[in-house]
Amino acid sequence: MAMAGLYRRVLPSPPAIDFASNEGKQLFLEAIQNGTMEGFFKLISYFQTQSEPAYCGLASLSMVLNALAIDPGRKWKGPWRWFDESMLDCCEPLEKVKAKGISFGKVVCLAHCAGAKVEAFRSNLSTIDDFRKHIMACTTSDDCHLISSNHRGLFKQTGSGHFSPIGGYHAEKDMALILDVARFKYPPHWVPVPLLWEAMNTIDEATGLHRGYIIPHSYSVIYLDFHYKLLTSALP
Amino acid sequence: MAMAGLYRRVLPSPPAIDFASNEGKQLFLEAIQNGTMEGFFKLISYFQTQSEPAYCGLASLSMVLNALAIDPGRKWKGPWRWFDESMLDCCEPLEKVKAKGISFGKVVCLAHCAGAKVEAFRSNLSTIDDFRKHIMACTTSDDCHLISSNHRGLFKQTGSGHFSPIGGYHAEKDMALILDVARFKYPPHWVPVPLLWEAMNTIDEATGLHRGYIIPHSYSVIYLDFHYKLLTSALP
Repeated sequence: MAMAGLYRRVLPSPPAIDFASNEGKQLFLEAIQNGTMEGFFKLISYFQTQSEPAYCGLASLSMVLNALAIDPGRKWKGPWRWFDESMLDCCEPLEKVKAKGISFGKVVCLAHCAGAKVEAFRSNLSTIDDFRKHIMACTTSDDCHLISSNHRGLFKQTGSGHFSPIGGYHAEKDMALILDVARFKYPPHWVPVPLLWEAMNTIDEATGLHRGYIIPHSYSVIYLDFHYKLLTSALP
Repeated sequence: MAMAGLYRRVLPSPPAIDFASNEGKQLFLEAIQNGTMEGFFKLISYFQTQSEPAYCGLASLSMVLNALAIDPGRKWKGPWRWFDESMLDCCEPLEKVKAKGISFGKVVCLAHCAGAKVEAFRSNLSTIDDFRKHIMACTTSDDCHLISSNHRGLFKQTGSGHFSPIGGYHAEKDMALILDVARFKYPPHWVPVPLLWEAMNTIDEATGLHRGYIIPHSYSVIYLDFHYKLLTSALP
């Protein structure tokens, strides 16, 4: 068998825990029982592989747009309307994304352009406690899904800046499930939230700005209610 | 918003139960606790959308090949070796598959060609009891995954012949989880196994032959052990 090229990578564990390992399955079961995998079902239903090595931002966004059941209002193939990465051709030319990837700000722009309402938090303008509240709000419902923009180095993974959706949360162990869209490289995996925060609290050299996290919503969700829940969850 | 074309379909329920509904989540939790979702974790990690309206056979197979960690031995994009539908260009020309879909026999041929060991069962040469034993063997391990070839009509769904992997089993309720690769149309859903069997026990007009199910394996799995388990599971 030809061996040129790379066949996946071994997931550095620790710090990550493979979703399909015995330990990963146990975390998953406990998190379901504790109600912090509610968003998982819709999100995993649209889990996809980034179709180009630099399309992590586009793949993460198209997963979330499909999970939120946002109608792109135009055809994909045959009679079907459906978000494919190739349709996210707003804010930044696709050829440029293919060559160099996409910045945090441009992904936010794209989400707006595709018809989502978007909350975006750069790590220098947010805190780990806010991040946890947002994770909790999104994993206990299926109205919103977080997209993390982080640096892979903190997880001892090869590569640098990367986008992936967060698929669930284990509150007691304070671990989040990363649904890595670079599935040809690493499988889905659990990571400690403090380390994930540290990985988001890094600077993208291409823009000189901090990374962070993005929460797209459907306009059909009552937006104020979401904020109300976030606010009241912060009360003693 | 432009409304030409179709934005998904409403899943006819019953007979199917949406994976992300409350009832679907409950079935899922019970099935995990009973050990018949073991294969789910790897398979769902590679869940994908068929990239063309007639590529259900190719998408189902590429999901399973990736879940089995079979190395295609050639590059996909960048340095990465990874199964994409466009690489399943054996047994039947891709242009023909794009126009007309693919037959049961050609999917079996393709799985062999891609480097898998394959068991294939046409419904007229198998029984529902054998099918249940195979479902049980595959959902309690992560060494094999079933691909069903069935007729959508039995589920009151639009369309005709369709391929999709089976993602899990609820033994007590005798229901199987279909990870429908036509995700632009229907979400993943649970169906009663007797109805699934009936849907597989139909004739493909293009070939005049019965549909059925396909089980690809990795050569790295000790094949005889699998058969031994199947055999002993049939003993009183």
